[in-house]
Amino acid sequence: MKRYHLEVRVKPRPGLLDPQGKAVAHALSDLGYAGVADVRVGKILDVELDAPSETEARERGEEMCRKLLANPVTEDFEVTVAGILEDA
Amino acid sequence: MKRYHLEVRVKPRPGLLDPQGKAVAHALSDLGYAGVADVRVGKILDVELDAPSETEARERGEEMCRKLLANPVTEDFEVTVAGILEDA
Repeated sequence: MKRYHLEVRVKPRPGLLDPQGKAVAHALSDLGYAGVADVRVGKILDVELDAPSETEARERGEEMCRKLLANPVTEDFEVTVAGILEDA
Repeated sequence: MKRYHLEVRVKPRPGLLDPQGKAVAHALSDLGYAGVADVRVGKILDVELDAPSETEARERGEEMCRKLLANPVTEDFEVTVAGILEDA
């Protein structure tokens, strides 16, 4: 078993409205930033997970996204192994 | 002017408590996932920004983080240029 650092990105699906992103874009314009064409806001999760292999770690991360971390209707997710932390 | 795709990651500072991350870690354990050692939750923003150069785009993104997108006391941020979208 090793401890893996997973980076999990959960983002609103392209084409779906993202009210939080729109609010941020307006706030940036109000602060004087010209040229902001679009903002979309998602989550990034750093997960430390003990698993027997890198493949297994990534697969468990993807399953966690399907079951808990992402909304399958409105969000897309991507799981990458960002590093191996230590022998667990 | 070109339109740049900035990827902005805003994460809780190492060492600071992250209650949302702790809640996610507990929820994963309750769902039966053993081996989750730690979870930390941050934001990832996809920003489309018109700027005269890649350097300028990144610098504006970092300034946006300091002024609005990140809490300088509790969060760290990282801005990367993920792509050039088109001539704006």
